[in-house]
Amino acid sequence: MTMGEEVLFVDRRVKFIYNGVAQVALPQPEQTPFEQDLNLFILQNGNYGHHNMSSQKVISTAIETATHTLFEQNFVPWKFHPRHSNFEPAMNASCTYIRTVHLEQTDVDPANVTKPLAGDVDESYSLSIATDGQVTITAASSIGIAHGLTTFTQLFYKHSSGSVYTPYTPVDITDAPMFQHRGLNMDVSRVWYSPADVIRMIDALAYNKFNRLHLHITDAQSWPLEIPALPMLAEKGSYREGLTYSPSTMAYIQDYGASRGVEVILEIDMPGHTSSIAYSYPELIAAFNEKDWSKYAAEPPSGTLKLNSTAVTNFLDTLFDDLLPRVLPYSSYFHTGGDEVNVNAYTLDDTVRSNDTAILQPLMQAFVDRAHAKVRAAGLTPIAWEEMLLTWNLTLGSDVVIQTWQSDEAVAETVSKGHKALVGNYNYWQYYPYNDYCAPLHNWRVMYAYDPLNGVPANLTHLVLGGEVHIWSEQTDPVNIDRQVWPRACAAAEVLWSGAKDEQGQNRSQITASPRLSEMRERLVARGIGAEPIQMPFCTQNGTQCAL
Amino acid sequence: MTMGEEVLFVDRRVKFIYNGVAQVALPQPEQTPFEQDLNLFILQNGNYGHHNMSSQKVISTAIETATHTLFEQNFVPWKFHPRHSNFEPAMNASCTYIRTVHLEQTDVDPANVTKPLAGDVDESYSLSIATDGQVTITAASSIGIAHGLTTFTQLFYKHSSGSVYTPYTPVDITDAPMFQHRGLNMDVSRVWYSPADVIRMIDALAYNKFNRLHLHITDAQSWPLEIPALPMLAEKGSYREGLTYSPSTMAYIQDYGASRGVEVILEIDMPGHTSSIAYSYPELIAAFNEKDWSKYAAEPPSGTLKLNSTAVTNFLDTLFDDLLPRVLPYSSYFHTGGDEVNVNAYTLDDTVRSNDTAILQPLMQAFVDRAHAKVRAAGLTPIAWEEMLLTWNLTLGSDVVIQTWQSDEAVAETVSKGHKALVGNYNYWQYYPYNDYCAPLHNWRVMYAYDPLNGVPANLTHLVLGGEVHIWSEQTDPVNIDRQVWPRACAAAEVLWSGAKDEQGQNRSQITASPRLSEMRERLVARGIGAEPIQMPFCTQNGTQCAL
Repeated sequence: MTMGEEVLFVDRRVKFIYNGVAQVALPQPEQTPFEQDLNLFILQNGNYGHHNMSSQKVISTAIETATHTLFEQNFVPWKFHPRHSNFEPAMNASCTYIRTVHLEQTDVDPANVTKPLAGDVDESYSLSIATDGQVTITAASSIGIAHGLTTFTQLFYKHSSGSVYTPYTPVDITDAPMFQHRGLNMDVSRVWYSPADVIRMIDALAYNKFNRLHLHITDAQSWPLEIPALPMLAEKGSYREGLTYSPSTMAYIQDYGASRGVEVILEIDMPGHTSSIAYSYPELIAAFNEKDWSKYAAEPPSGTLKLNSTAVTNFLDTLFDDLLPRVLPYSSYFHTGGDEVNVNAYTLDDTVRSNDTAILQPLMQAFVDRAHAKVRAAGLTPIAWEEMLLTWNLTLGSDVVIQTWQSDEAVAETVSKGHKALVGNYNYWQYYPYNDYCAPLHNWRVMYAYDPLNGVPANLTHLVLGGEVHIWSEQTDPVNIDRQVWPRACAAAEVLWSGAKDEQGQNRSQITASPRLSEMRERLVARGIGAEPIQMPFCTQNGTQCAL
Repeated sequence: MTMGEEVLFVDRRVKFIYNGVAQVALPQPEQTPFEQDLNLFILQNGNYGHHNMSSQKVISTAIETATHTLFEQNFVPWKFHPRHSNFEPAMNASCTYIRTVHLEQTDVDPANVTKPLAGDVDESYSLSIATDGQVTITAASSIGIAHGLTTFTQLFYKHSSGSVYTPYTPVDITDAPMFQHRGLNMDVSRVWYSPADVIRMIDALAYNKFNRLHLHITDAQSWPLEIPALPMLAEKGSYREGLTYSPSTMAYIQDYGASRGVEVILEIDMPGHTSSIAYSYPELIAAFNEKDWSKYAAEPPSGTLKLNSTAVTNFLDTLFDDLLPRVLPYSSYFHTGGDEVNVNAYTLDDTVRSNDTAILQPLMQAFVDRAHAKVRAAGLTPIAWEEMLLTWNLTLGSDVVIQTWQSDEAVAETVSKGHKALVGNYNYWQYYPYNDYCAPLHNWRVMYAYDPLNGVPANLTHLVLGGEVHIWSEQTDPVNIDRQVWPRACAAAEVLWSGAKDEQGQNRSQITASPRLSEMRERLVARGIGAEPIQMPFCTQNGTQCAL
């Protein structure tokens, strides 16, 4: 990557040429209300099951987003220059303007470009900006072009006059991600988030080149996901009428992510974390809402799907048959959960009546085998939490991706068993440590210090697909989620994209990271994301002086 | 306090009768933009120095706020009832409505009712709501009436139909604060907050019956306070043009607080924390912005007013002569700071050239004596940080209020020397512990556990005037300040109003506090304050089940 010090402005009527074809600029509404979009989406697609994604849609969306970002969501960078300094470039007749951006896609997209398995899509890109205003973004895939456009916008600032400029030309960037799975796990069960909250999160994720949004969509506390074949589930299991996700809403969210390179992955956590099913189907849940909950669960309410029950099997068949066909157009994965199963709950399970793992383990094996068979039959790849492999010692298909969360050792152990792994050690990348969910936030420095490959043998690093940061909702809701996640997740995004080590094999410098992260925070705020400040203006105005 | 279980509604045309006189309802704008208000304020008052406060204004403002709160900023309390339960009262022809609220003030307000010294105003009130809709608030002062109206609004909920009701009648409340000084210290120097941010904070403070807003208005990082006699101070010392507080803006803020029972107290911290003066008057500051800042200050940039300089004396005379007359209409206090003076900085002070406290201490005594004499001459009472008394062992006038912050011992030591004390141990009540300002937030439980009288001998408790919570701005700005302060400051508000111990002398139950605090959080959010959740809806829907 090289960047110079010449100034270039962008013409407000800048044209985008994609593989030689000028792209039609869409009229930009000031803000797109979710309802309006949703209606439009349903209108265009006829019904929620119809998948209408294309490389052209990815490109069009990326151009639309880049234009909106450059001209409507930009910021004057006064915080990054000495106080009362004259930091803005002079504007006069001799200014050079960018009038055209050339987008050159070198390969044809794979059919699953918006719902890849890890590694299916080449996300790399190169970006050059010449001092005469020539701009070219080259990539193998439409997603790579989109990443290039995102980077392009991040080189520009708003001028007090309203113009948009970059002080960094000539620019020559060649860029590619180190990890293929770069995600956020968002808990939309303990608290309900509006579709507008979720798509705001997708916008922020895409802007940070995350490519997965894992929705932890059901849990013990509420069941917001509407399942038309099992209507009582959400009707009784939601917190309140209206606090649910309908199939059309889900399709809108999935489609919104897909067209921005963010694959939406759904998780139905099981067999634990399912007590909200008891509001509609009490006969399926053991140990529901026991007063002495800490004996049966990590937090209230306790409850788990019965482990040896035909009724549960039938219920899950109905659930999967209804839900998975609506997942398939938008994702190649389905997450069956599997964390924190409490064996004591099965002492109250009339189909088991035991907490002896020798009895429980074969039942769990059968339970998970059935679930994963359904997932595969629907054309999807299963993901499961680490406990299924490492605590319960289940034999899982080699296709199953294991999401680790408890330690670095869990990653090493998972890949040593030949499984693909996702990282996200909760000591670094989870917003609330599980054993004390009222405990402090994890500072961005802790997140930045995390190496996904820590302790992984060199010959097995290819099995580490990437990782996810986690936002659980015990003390988070729509009012504060932006500031809980951002800008700290930017630190994880950088580790997942560029790796934890720099070119010299050293941990990346937190000193040089702090101004970068502060600028990213201002860019997020300009986009309507309520990201926290990590430094006061005195620090941002003085380089790295405060970052000792 | 007694509260029943009968339901009462409020008529939208409810009348307020104050001492027998019906109050004229003002037309309520949906929202009052700050600029519009400011223009109106300047128009009405002719110039910023004119003080136009009266008991009538306090009453009118309280009625206006109560009406707006009841009908425009209320909330449907679904989170506090079991899921899908029918918790709302039936509406029919036999509902009883409140049509009149009687406000009975029994004493004439003291002249300084809106700018009292601690103890000058009787803030107690009683509130009764009969099941037939009769409402009476009785208080000795207009401020007491305002508190009664605030409590009144907090008994009501919004009905899905849009009506407003209370399920708690009959109500019989007699209430009075334990501590006279209940404040928030807000750092508006490290980060600039718009006047709209500050008055939003005043609204939230008044709603929690805080009665002081201490503005830490200048510090090392920026000098946002415009001083017309020293115009370069803010012109050069602010972060950016426009990020300043003009005299008319300050008067607007002070007046806004005064009419809501929140006395705005200004602090010019000195002699440390003054390096922003060096941008305009470099000759007054020693050790300005030393690279090796940790030798000379607790955080960058280092710098301190010279300790034996006629130029500094003249500068401060000019500053005080300009500023203090604009404080006097709105406050009886002026805070001269005095925390964290670093003795090493004086080795670089050409008027001293020493870090020997034997040399520095008499100079500091003279420095503070001069400052406090100016404050007294302006008709104000000085406040100083604990270090001036306890670290520097200065002899201070008996009128000087000492603001402690480092320990409970500091409180005990201060009162044992016969001084009035403010509490606010930073291990409990400060948002960022000073030695590591990137460290975790203090959870509300820690704040709630703080006893202002801990370690204070029983015969000296009368000297503990109250205390303040602190919001420093190293990692806080307008985007996240609401979440940083609220609802945790509500816990401090309760301790300051009701004391840390219950009627049995036990620490107040955190279990019974959590639903109360969660409800208060929803009320704040309904008022446009971005307060954090402390629990998920599963917990609030189930009483104290999660609060173990």
